[in-house]
Amino acid sequence: MRFFSDNAAPVHPAVLAAMADANVLDTAYDGDAWSKQLDGLFSDLFETEVSALWVPSGTSANSLALAALCPPHGAIVCHRDAHIQNDECGAPGFYTHGATLILGDGPGAKLTPEGIAAATAHIRADVHQVQPHAVSITNATEYGLVYTPAEVAAIGELCRSKGWGLHMDGARFANAVANLGCAPADVTWRAGVDALSFGFVKNGGMSAEALVFFKPELAEATLMRRKRAGLLFSKGRYLAAQILAMLEDDLWLANARAANAGARLLAEAAGDRLVFPVEANEVFVRVSAEEAAGLRALGFDFYDWGVGEARLVISWNQAEDAIRPLADAIAAL
Amino acid sequence: MRFFSDNAAPVHPAVLAAMADANVLDTAYDGDAWSKQLDGLFSDLFETEVSALWVPSGTSANSLALAALCPPHGAIVCHRDAHIQNDECGAPGFYTHGATLILGDGPGAKLTPEGIAAATAHIRADVHQVQPHAVSITNATEYGLVYTPAEVAAIGELCRSKGWGLHMDGARFANAVANLGCAPADVTWRAGVDALSFGFVKNGGMSAEALVFFKPELAEATLMRRKRAGLLFSKGRYLAAQILAMLEDDLWLANARAANAGARLLAEAAGDRLVFPVEANEVFVRVSAEEAAGLRALGFDFYDWGVGEARLVISWNQAEDAIRPLADAIAAL
Amino acid sequence: MRFFSDNAAPVHPAVLAAMADANVLDTAYDGDAWSKQLDGLFSDLFETEVSALWVPSGTSANSLALAALCPPHGAIVCHRDAHIQNDECGAPGFYTHGATLILGDGPGAKLTPEGIAAATAHIRADVHQVQPHAVSITNATEYGLVYTPAEVAAIGELCRSKGWGLHMDGARFANAVANLGCAPADVTWRAGVDALSFGFVKNGGMSAEALVFFKPELAEATLMRRKRAGLLFSKGRYLAAQILAMLEDDLWLANARAANAGARLLAEAAGDRLVFPVEANEVFVRVSAEEAAGLRALGFDFYDWGVGEARLVISWNQAEDAIRPLADAIAAL
Amino acid sequence: MRFFSDNAAPVHPAVLAAMADANVLDTAYDGDAWSKQLDGLFSDLFETEVSALWVPSGTSANSLALAALCPPHGAIVCHRDAHIQNDECGAPGFYTHGATLILGDGPGAKLTPEGIAAATAHIRADVHQVQPHAVSITNATEYGLVYTPAEVAAIGELCRSKGWGLHMDGARFANAVANLGCAPADVTWRAGVDALSFGFVKNGGMSAEALVFFKPELAEATLMRRKRAGLLFSKGRYLAAQILAMLEDDLWLANARAANAGARLLAEAAGDRLVFPVEANEVFVRVSAEEAAGLRALGFDFYDWGVGEARLVISWNQAEDAIRPLADAIAAL
Repeated sequence: MRFFSDNAAPVHPAVLAAMADANVLDTAYDGDAWSKQLDGLFSDLFETEVSALWVPSGTSANSLALAALCPPHGAIVCHRDAHIQNDECGAPGFYTHGATLILGDGPGAKLTPEGIAAATAHIRADVHQVQPHAVSITNATEYGLVYTPAEVAAIGELCRSKGWGLHMDGARFANAVANLGCAPADVTWRAGVDALSFGFVKNGGMSAEALVFFKPELAEATLMRRKRAGLLFSKGRYLAAQILAMLEDDLWLANARAANAGARLLAEAAGDRLVFPVEANEVFVRVSAEEAAGLRALGFDFYDWGVGEARLVISWNQAEDAIRPLADAIAAL
Repeated sequence: MRFFSDNAAPVHPAVLAAMADANVLDTAYDGDAWSKQLDGLFSDLFETEVSALWVPSGTSANSLALAALCPPHGAIVCHRDAHIQNDECGAPGFYTHGATLILGDGPGAKLTPEGIAAATAHIRADVHQVQPHAVSITNATEYGLVYTPAEVAAIGELCRSKGWGLHMDGARFANAVANLGCAPADVTWRAGVDALSFGFVKNGGMSAEALVFFKPELAEATLMRRKRAGLLFSKGRYLAAQILAMLEDDLWLANARAANAGARLLAEAAGDRLVFPVEANEVFVRVSAEEAAGLRALGFDFYDWGVGEARLVISWNQAEDAIRPLADAIAAL
Repeated sequence: MRFFSDNAAPVHPAVLAAMADANVLDTAYDGDAWSKQLDGLFSDLFETEVSALWVPSGTSANSLALAALCPPHGAIVCHRDAHIQNDECGAPGFYTHGATLILGDGPGAKLTPEGIAAATAHIRADVHQVQPHAVSITNATEYGLVYTPAEVAAIGELCRSKGWGLHMDGARFANAVANLGCAPADVTWRAGVDALSFGFVKNGGMSAEALVFFKPELAEATLMRRKRAGLLFSKGRYLAAQILAMLEDDLWLANARAANAGARLLAEAAGDRLVFPVEANEVFVRVSAEEAAGLRALGFDFYDWGVGEARLVISWNQAEDAIRPLADAIAAL
Repeated sequence: MRFFSDNAAPVHPAVLAAMADANVLDTAYDGDAWSKQLDGLFSDLFETEVSALWVPSGTSANSLALAALCPPHGAIVCHRDAHIQNDECGAPGFYTHGATLILGDGPGAKLTPEGIAAATAHIRADVHQVQPHAVSITNATEYGLVYTPAEVAAIGELCRSKGWGLHMDGARFANAVANLGCAPADVTWRAGVDALSFGFVKNGGMSAEALVFFKPELAEATLMRRKRAGLLFSKGRYLAAQILAMLEDDLWLANARAANAGARLLAEAAGDRLVFPVEANEVFVRVSAEEAAGLRALGFDFYDWGVGEARLVISWNQAEDAIRPLADAIAAL
């Protein structure tokens, strides 16, 4: 009864099956039949011409995107609680060769145009200060909130007016889209997003994420950077196959809907213990240390999140009967 | 009938099966039950205490090893034909933050103490010149030659006398050991090697190599660098499981022996067309452009290698009956 | 009547004279008779064996110090208002190859052990988060406050307990020591400082700062980094000569005392308009936009500092009669 | 009687005088009256609109130029004997964030289109290999040879056809122009050069070189990089003043002509001992170890250059009577 991370969940059987189906002789690196389909499939999904690369982790997807949008002497604005700031061991600094993250605020790890403006207000346009070149937002956020198309577009408009790029860390992009019910295009390029880290690993995949550039010209140098970082696997077809399996029949959406539904179940049980509205597959609840200990004594596994809060994450494979016991236990607190 | 790369070959069924067996809920990153076995299993294999990390590609293994052995302002001596110099898009420069590769010579991509001395003879010990900090050798080499324990030890001795580290790119380490018939320890740490990129992908694996440090203290900062490069997969157990499968019952050796045997078969057929002795799973033969075209017309796929030479690579899964037709065709030229 | 920067002031005649005296044929780089004296003179000044290098700017001194104390995957804690964070265009990120600055708070740009602890409290000791390796404090601070030996020692103690290095940005170190009246050793190595950027340029020098390592072993790699950054001037004697002139007869202290005295003059005139106590050569006063305009109309030149504040900087060469008119004008507001 | 380096020579009195004249209060960094003249004066000198920045060393000029022309994942072709390869401690790798130097051959450290083509012939246009983005040539070369406008133009044409940038390391550009008697434009932008490191330090300056961009748009990011490297001096006027003094009445040309003339004097004495024709201010002569010892016993100071050769460098301030004794001694060998 583990609720501590969607990274701990197993891989969806269709993904494993697709990898087994790819277990034939083919061309090395990304010249194979699977990898060659990515540009087209993601262009279809996003209703515009995109360039889509497989990469093996969310951190590498994010970092390559940032390196494409920001020079070494530039800065990227992100939320103080962003994954790129807190959980990637400085990967953006490595891939960008030392660019700076400027930290903004906002409830639930959500940036706003006003928050971005406040975080950058002190920056003079001179060579003494690191100049912003991009904004990175996470959708769904690290606290499970979802940016609507309008909210993204407001940030996109700010970026356009400043000449900045806009990156979306979509480690849980599927959960966001499942919540919004919108076209993937609406919350990305139509709202001004230039590059998307489209996550699959937390959503039933094994080791493949898609880095989607809505400005395909950004891909060229990225292909060099991907190789230079040791990320261009010699047997890339096993990554591409994972992604194809996730796209087929919208498995990515089905998995995300399942996880979101499970989270709503918990949310209803948690009532006013909720720290944030539940819009994706993460549930943050206020519990005392004793209450947390009590839940653990019942066999539930989860992370404390700061003092007096717990994070509960629902994975794609946790059906209602797996979640109901925890919901009941929370309701009974 | 493809002979152009062992990267194009499929994955061994035992590796796929091990990945499927790992498809259960477990801890994320490298805290899982599979990853935790690596240090012990490789310590057993090498008969000394080592630190062993999974990484997803040979390029990342090599680069992390070099970053552990050489500061940004230092240099690594390697052969002019080394993979790290020619086929990794400058990954060593990325991971080391700009260290220099000093290129040495020697037949068949093999370095010698004399070659290393010649390549570094012009370097004064001052701050104006980049100072060597490490040597990197490839075993088996990019031309399929194998360093013996004595040959490695001679280089190891030079490194020790200079205070340099010694890295072995073992993308085809299995083929080398299969050829030598020695203990893995003999051709590595007993001969002065500090870090080994132990390759599995070219030998039946999918996406997991082992980075083995014979000085375990080198692992600490490497763990940070691995994360910082986006290489610490959230579902690391699927990498570790691959390696465990390759180690079990010495599958790595069996696969390498099979590939080496296939290469010897070709070598016998090639006779004095051989550019180098065949000691691993690569065969370089002198063929005219017309002869090469003739072989291709018969359905054989391979890379030209410079002018008048062809590279033929045997994979773990190519049995004698798969190779015999090519051997006969070469003999008939 | 300019009060906007001690960088705008001219160079002390003794410094210019020393440069002219050095205008003879000598060895290139830092092999000359002047450069060779630095280690000894600073060891005398600090009453312990130090390694001292000339560098041509405060930014390069700071960055080289940080690179000596923090690996690329590490972090340095500094104040949110620190020069290294706000006014060096990301130089620490460049020289450290991407290390992170963690920003702490405290009045007047002054860090405290508590502030440092608060800024780092969220950091788990794992590979996902950038780990602190050093603290950097500025003495005198960017707001003209001076750390006492006891205040530095408290931070030094924290660093020692954590295994972190401690750097002091001493762009206005002379002003701090002049204020404290202590031995330079008391507020540096005896209080736990490992590396000091000892500034001369703002204090009557032209283009030479001293980077002083109280752990001389930190100098070795720094010598390589200095060269690699293009900072090892071929005619280094003209830098060393500047520093020797500043050290001779404690010119550095005399200049700083003069500037500090001028600042106190302004401080007395400013009374409760002062934003911070005046402990060095910078005076921050609360003035309305109209008052600021009025002062400028009288011919006084200075920077606004945020809204409703002005920064007034006194240089080494501004004697009482140069400052009195501004003091009177402020008193008359 | 030192002939070992033009870096050891003193500074021209006019340069020192200009620095003293600049010893007044002015704006900090590069906002001063001297720095503002550089763009215009170099545009006049080169008969086209250029962007010209002061930098404090040849290494920093070269590195900033290369960083403007080559991305981190790219390569720069230079001669095996180039200063950027051998004498800058890997500065190009630092400033470019890890770009590779590809080493070409040619007598007297001189590259040719054929040499460049040979050095890059093995590079496939794929992501596995580092792709060339620029060529760097040194004029006069490290062996005192001078590229003619036609020779530069041939390389410039190759670069244009490949889309590569072209950098000229002009540490001894003055000596080259003095030898050629051409317009500075003829051997630079008219021949395809994009960026020039225009050296003054070896030619009577103290610590200022000009980095001249013939494509002014290259300057923008370079201004950020200059600051980020700690090279934007707070009292920049003392650097700009040096350059203005060197430009005034063509002092740079007069100094170079004097040094070149001295070198020709030695060349005549050396006769067939010359290793290379003498076209600038460096003279390489074949001398046995005994002969070298004999010269040193007479009080002449110089560097051995490999085995059996000596390098003799004439500085701007060495008049005929200072050189004659060495010329006579060589003739008498």
